[in-house]
Amino acid sequence: MPVHLPTADREFPLAPPITASAWLNTPTPIALDALRGRVIALHAFQMLCPGCVVHGIPQAQRLRDAFAGEGLVVLGLHSVFEHHAVMGPDALAAFVHEYRLDFPIAVDQAVPGSEIPRTMQDYRLRGTPSLVLIDRGGRIRADLFGRPDDLRVGALVGRLLAEPTASPSGAPAADTGKGGAAGEGCDADGCRVG
Amino acid sequence: MPVHLPTADREFPLAPPITASAWLNTPTPIALDALRGRVIALHAFQMLCPGCVVHGIPQAQRLRDAFAGEGLVVLGLHSVFEHHAVMGPDALAAFVHEYRLDFPIAVDQAVPGSEIPRTMQDYRLRGTPSLVLIDRGGRIRADLFGRPDDLRVGALVGRLLAEPTASPSGAPAADTGKGGAAGEGCDADGCRVG
Amino acid sequence: MPVHLPTADREFPLAPPITASAWLNTPTPIALDALRGRVIALHAFQMLCPGCVVHGIPQAQRLRDAFAGEGLVVLGLHSVFEHHAVMGPDALAAFVHEYRLDFPIAVDQAVPGSEIPRTMQDYRLRGTPSLVLIDRGGRIRADLFGRPDDLRVGALVGRLLAEPTASPSGAPAADTGKGGAAGEGCDADGCRVG
Amino acid sequence: MPVHLPTADREFPLAPPITASAWLNTPTPIALDALRGRVIALHAFQMLCPGCVVHGIPQAQRLRDAFAGEGLVVLGLHSVFEHHAVMGPDALAAFVHEYRLDFPIAVDQAVPGSEIPRTMQDYRLRGTPSLVLIDRGGRIRADLFGRPDDLRVGALVGRLLAEPTASPSGAPAADTGKGGAAGEGCDADGCRVG
Repeated sequence: MPVHLPTADREFPLAPPITASAWLNTPTPIALDALRGRVIALHAFQMLCPGCVVHGIPQAQRLRDAFAGEGLVVLGLHSVFEHHAVMGPDALAAFVHEYRLDFPIAVDQAVPGSEIPRTMQDYRLRGTPSLVLIDRGGRIRADLFGRPDDLRVGALVGRLLAEPTASPSGAPAADTGKGGAAGEGCDADGCRVG
Repeated sequence: MPVHLPTADREFPLAPPITASAWLNTPTPIALDALRGRVIALHAFQMLCPGCVVHGIPQAQRLRDAFAGEGLVVLGLHSVFEHHAVMGPDALAAFVHEYRLDFPIAVDQAVPGSEIPRTMQDYRLRGTPSLVLIDRGGRIRADLFGRPDDLRVGALVGRLLAEPTASPSGAPAADTGKGGAAGEGCDADGCRVG
Repeated sequence: MPVHLPTADREFPLAPPITASAWLNTPTPIALDALRGRVIALHAFQMLCPGCVVHGIPQAQRLRDAFAGEGLVVLGLHSVFEHHAVMGPDALAAFVHEYRLDFPIAVDQAVPGSEIPRTMQDYRLRGTPSLVLIDRGGRIRADLFGRPDDLRVGALVGRLLAEPTASPSGAPAADTGKGGAAGEGCDADGCRVG
Repeated sequence: MPVHLPTADREFPLAPPITASAWLNTPTPIALDALRGRVIALHAFQMLCPGCVVHGIPQAQRLRDAFAGEGLVVLGLHSVFEHHAVMGPDALAAFVHEYRLDFPIAVDQAVPGSEIPRTMQDYRLRGTPSLVLIDRGGRIRADLFGRPDDLRVGALVGRLLAEPTASPSGAPAADTGKGGAAGEGCDADGCRVG
């Protein structure tokens, strides 16, 4: 699949804050603002989403292992939009323990009257797994839904890591993964918001 | 890894009944006795066991797809021995739905005062994933803990399917997978009973 | 893909002899007759056939590693039917050395005036890779062209190993792999005879 | 494995010319100088090197498929340093045909009295497979021997593609893959120059 690498010739939206009801694997909550100057890979998942378990989470761990020394920060975001009753904090804690995940993970804040949690709404994520790449300036440069391959994800991360820390002005059209994936529910690629 | 194929030169134990508090993917409970004359692959798993999700369950589905026409019956057994609170029936139902599992699955009956459920105790399973192969005469011929490869599992199934239906007398030493796996808890291979 | 396991209810053809111009990895030529009583996996390949290099040859080595102790004999057959000039004995020797193959390999005898070598003709192979399974009685029980998966190959081997050594009468319809693969030349599955 | 991304804070060597006795998949020879302004992935291989066939060549094709639209040029370099007699131009042509390779491939020029061909000497390659990444200014930025994973290769390519075309001054220390791989001959990683 051809890869489109977003260049820095237009404005990108600033990444909204992560609104979490709890955090795992970190003693204190993490604010994106405090990470300005670093590249962030934000991996949104659900613990019962097959595409997340088989593809997205292992890729997030590979990203952490490969690029921690280069200044990439990998964060998890547990954005539950279905089966809420069985993917609560205790279930997530057991999952994180069994899968030996050790990067910080935010529990996306529930929104009363909505299936879709706060951060997922604010980022307009299409479902899980989603990999959001945020540049040193705090802007969303890619929002990849489904199963992007390592070559593509590596190229995007390599591009963002190559940009200087002080890059005040905007950059190019965000990569939004495959275009018009239709339908809802989970399939081999991931779980879509209805 | 060399494969040992159990030949029919000595007695094998009869498979104990499956003691289930509930069944999924079947309108009525399934009794092993009623399957006498068929070969059975009983896959014991936990929904939050990584080795089960990544290896055991996909292999069970491949077995079902490959050998349904040859008379193999694939059954799941959800034998929870840790994190009981978050792997209850509702959580399992969501898991089975998301992973599109469609073979019959028994919920192993809890035992008051024990972490280990009834059927798991009766079969003396070492942990999850475990693949138990039962011959046409209702005897346990293999109990494979961890991640046996397809070539080995295929050979065992092929051997059992080759045996005639009416085979009243016993057969060889059961294959018990890798020998002395030590320790407890989950690792890349599976989750061991402590 | 559903697997059909050939049962022993009808006649199977006797495996023709291997007609070789040379052998590698064995001090003396191997006669199939001398292996009567053992199960044989005969893997026909070409060193420049991608399906052989990526799928068939590694599978042949896994078979050897898994079942050598169970009495399975794995033999290679280099059946060149295209690019003859660059797949001669010296090229094959370099290939076998670099890929660390250590099971015996026969060089299929060229036939003057034909692209297709002697043993390949006698076995009526459809192309490479082909995996021919021969039972203890010397009969061809399966002829698998292309990329049969490990579960299926394991089941066939397990069935044949389960049969008693002295099995004078015939057995079931040979498994012939996927049915009507059309066309010629090499593709992802293998190289077909034109 | 942690990835080191070479930044542009020191001088890199200019890539030597490719000295070829022949080219495949291109009507005319390709000069690196004529590609100045583009990023080049030069994949050095031998057709009988297992690490090349299983890892390096498929990765080169993935690179071509993913980044052709982004300005990456993928070139092959057949650098034979062993088994010369059976990896000549005719054998290579058959290999390229069977594996459906369609990027331009240079046949590295033999050097009288040496096992190691001209371009391989000039680049001081450690063996095959080697992936050499050349930036828009014609400088060698990475020389990866063995089996670098897609995440790492993607990151390096993404970084180089992000650099502006007119970047006259030097850049950082070239990435040289794993450090002190010892020994010679072929293993799972690749084939080393003795």
